[in-house]
Amino acid sequence: MTSASTTRTLEHVISSEQFDREILDDIFARADRLAGHRDTRLAGRIMATLFYEPSTRTRLSFESAMLRLGGSVMGTEAAREFSSVIKGETLEDTIRMVSSYADVIVLRHDQAGAAARAAAVASVPVVNAGDGPGEHPTQALLDLYTIRSERGTADGVHIAFCGDLRFGRTVHSLVQLLSLHPGVRMSFVAPEVVQVGADLLARMAAAGVVFQLTDRLDDVISSVDVVYQTRVQKERFTDLVDFEAARRAIRIDAEVMRALPPNAIVMHPLPRVDEIATEVDSDPRAAYFRQARNGVAVRMAVLDLLLG
Amino acid sequence: MTSASTTRTLEHVISSEQFDREILDDIFARADRLAGHRDTRLAGRIMATLFYEPSTRTRLSFESAMLRLGGSVMGTEAAREFSSVIKGETLEDTIRMVSSYADVIVLRHDQAGAAARAAAVASVPVVNAGDGPGEHPTQALLDLYTIRSERGTADGVHIAFCGDLRFGRTVHSLVQLLSLHPGVRMSFVAPEVVQVGADLLARMAAAGVVFQLTDRLDDVISSVDVVYQTRVQKERFTDLVDFEAARRAIRIDAEVMRALPPNAIVMHPLPRVDEIATEVDSDPRAAYFRQARNGVAVRMAVLDLLLG
Amino acid sequence: MTSASTTRTLEHVISSEQFDREILDDIFARADRLAGHRDTRLAGRIMATLFYEPSTRTRLSFESAMLRLGGSVMGTEAAREFSSVIKGETLEDTIRMVSSYADVIVLRHDQAGAAARAAAVASVPVVNAGDGPGEHPTQALLDLYTIRSERGTADGVHIAFCGDLRFGRTVHSLVQLLSLHPGVRMSFVAPEVVQVGADLLARMAAAGVVFQLTDRLDDVISSVDVVYQTRVQKERFTDLVDFEAARRAIRIDAEVMRALPPNAIVMHPLPRVDEIATEVDSDPRAAYFRQARNGVAVRMAVLDLLLG
Repeated sequence: MTSASTTRTLEHVISSEQFDREILDDIFARADRLAGHRDTRLAGRIMATLFYEPSTRTRLSFESAMLRLGGSVMGTEAAREFSSVIKGETLEDTIRMVSSYADVIVLRHDQAGAAARAAAVASVPVVNAGDGPGEHPTQALLDLYTIRSERGTADGVHIAFCGDLRFGRTVHSLVQLLSLHPGVRMSFVAPEVVQVGADLLARMAAAGVVFQLTDRLDDVISSVDVVYQTRVQKERFTDLVDFEAARRAIRIDAEVMRALPPNAIVMHPLPRVDEIATEVDSDPRAAYFRQARNGVAVRMAVLDLLLG
Repeated sequence: MTSASTTRTLEHVISSEQFDREILDDIFARADRLAGHRDTRLAGRIMATLFYEPSTRTRLSFESAMLRLGGSVMGTEAAREFSSVIKGETLEDTIRMVSSYADVIVLRHDQAGAAARAAAVASVPVVNAGDGPGEHPTQALLDLYTIRSERGTADGVHIAFCGDLRFGRTVHSLVQLLSLHPGVRMSFVAPEVVQVGADLLARMAAAGVVFQLTDRLDDVISSVDVVYQTRVQKERFTDLVDFEAARRAIRIDAEVMRALPPNAIVMHPLPRVDEIATEVDSDPRAAYFRQARNGVAVRMAVLDLLLG
Repeated sequence: MTSASTTRTLEHVISSEQFDREILDDIFARADRLAGHRDTRLAGRIMATLFYEPSTRTRLSFESAMLRLGGSVMGTEAAREFSSVIKGETLEDTIRMVSSYADVIVLRHDQAGAAARAAAVASVPVVNAGDGPGEHPTQALLDLYTIRSERGTADGVHIAFCGDLRFGRTVHSLVQLLSLHPGVRMSFVAPEVVQVGADLLARMAAAGVVFQLTDRLDDVISSVDVVYQTRVQKERFTDLVDFEAARRAIRIDAEVMRALPPNAIVMHPLPRVDEIATEVDSDPRAAYFRQARNGVAVRMAVLDLLLG
């Protein structure tokens, strides 16, 4: 059974680069079965949420997933206290200790590579819930799962990534996962200052992905299947006029929705500020709240895969 | 069955104005049955405590109620982080998201009306655990439940409200619930600066409630059934001498207890500082710790009504 | 049955002075049975972790213990908010209230004696999880349990306490428990400024314990069964040169380990900074991570004893 062998190869979830199509199929099949259900398969198992920076949203999504599988949760959003400058404990020592307390550790850290360091010493599975500018692999999984659920398949999809494409780790990870799917086309819609970097483009080219760059959503809106909107931060711009112009050029409102094909969807990792107008919320193509809901199902699948 | 129809009409618990005698009877009958018991009727259900300001006391009371019914809890006292100025997420978006994670949301907020806004977009029940100067309906429920439990009925009771009657939302909500009971008499015992407002008095008059105002507890202590003490804050006074005089005039100590009828009770929403002397604690008429205990039973009843 | 009578005499766990050999045997027998197991014997029971100062490490260890016995947990690391200067509530009132919410209270406080004050008014068991410069009895229990587990018995053991022996409450409590064991020898290895105090030495002498003082680990390392290392804080020293010299004289590294007998063990209450070199971690005699793991088993035993 391929599923069983997959299980054996996934000890930790650290990077979206760990996933091939087989593992993705396994995770998404589990998510389909578990979505909306309550179960007791992880009864007696304990998940520790060890957050070195607060991310209540991500923490609650993981906790909901664990509780829906019958498990228990404990944790802290003040994990920095463990390893304060005064105490001087290393991340490795902290992880060894928490490995004694819990059956799985969900780690949020502000330094890239922290999750891999944790996994190297942990005696229980580690799930990376974001390590600074590094990765946030379960976000990429729920994004891809949403595309599959909404459209049946991610193969051959035309997706427009909008907003901050240079610094947003969410975008980078999803781009990577989508490149495993044949026929995918990507449009990167962003002002120059936050446009996607040359290194990622080189990797896309090497993977045979068809892509284009633009700074206007208008250029691509009528031909896309998926719009993946993200927030652009004012701090990236030296000129406020440029910022306002860029924001207007990629903002999604009722007028933009009129140009979007009837079967297309709008996604957003949330939180959203005004880069999607609230008037869009009631449009059935607005998939971002369904996307958030999918986060619970996908995390149930990941926990089930690691602990089940 | 009236109980079943009541259940259908209570989707959220936002304001004490939602309650009529029928709903109160339903909630209190449930509280009587559930008090002191452990149950598994809410097994697999998740309560999110979403606190925009810390109130550990209220949070733990709700969490104890949910756990005693077999449910699970998750939450944060740092919900402000969700909607920080930087992130700019609206309360509505946050609630939509948490609706995906939990089966009931207990919301504490610093702005009046926040709970109603949350209920308008939530796909699960919302319980208002205090919205700034607004309401705190489960506190009013546990106060009324305590009067009923201690005295058999709230009908015809003579209650003296003491302390900060102008700004205390606890008092306003209990006054409102008591006005549903025939024959209730109210004495408002407070210095002028924090005496109950004209609008509330007008409503009492319209409801046919008999009331009187005074600034000395001595005036009414020998004829009351219930003393509801609250804390007066120094900041309300411009003159510290006035503050000290007011505090002395409404402070409850052993001497005041000698004037209190033998079947009367003393209540307080807690925390108490020195407005009730600790020497009163051992008097069987001191009902405030039993009142706190009733908070768990009443919240079990509310959760059972919303989710059961 | 002695075990049943023991149970009756242990209502709270406040001080290591409560324990005699009989109670210790009972607790450690329970720990042996419970270690590594999941159970439902405390299903429906609620533990409140009431921490007036954060100690995530200790909190998670207790929470893991309660969850592994099937119980539920709720709590706060911001218990100070309960009794803030503004609110002015006493610890006693807070404990009375939390007694209504929970079946056992795990209290961490910054004032010596706080746990005893809590126990005096609580209607449920109180476990002292550290009260400032006072006691931390479950740490002493897990330390002693580790010596017994690793060596079969604590009787006749030669233990070297190293580091901060004047201010470390961990050391004082373990010294007290070990003095209940015949034939124990103690070496106190510390620079003068943090060497163990005259009062403790007087008590050891009265209990018939054989001890010696030194400021160099080299003097005793080849004859000890247990090294109990702790961290020395720079703030204790007026002269930084003295501090560095002291640190070097008691630091444990590969070279020190070569002098340590083959059956001896190295313990540390953690967190560790550089007083034990990481090169020691892979040595089978490095018992400090096993010691941390034992904390869960011992706390399971304590909770089982109090609530079972």
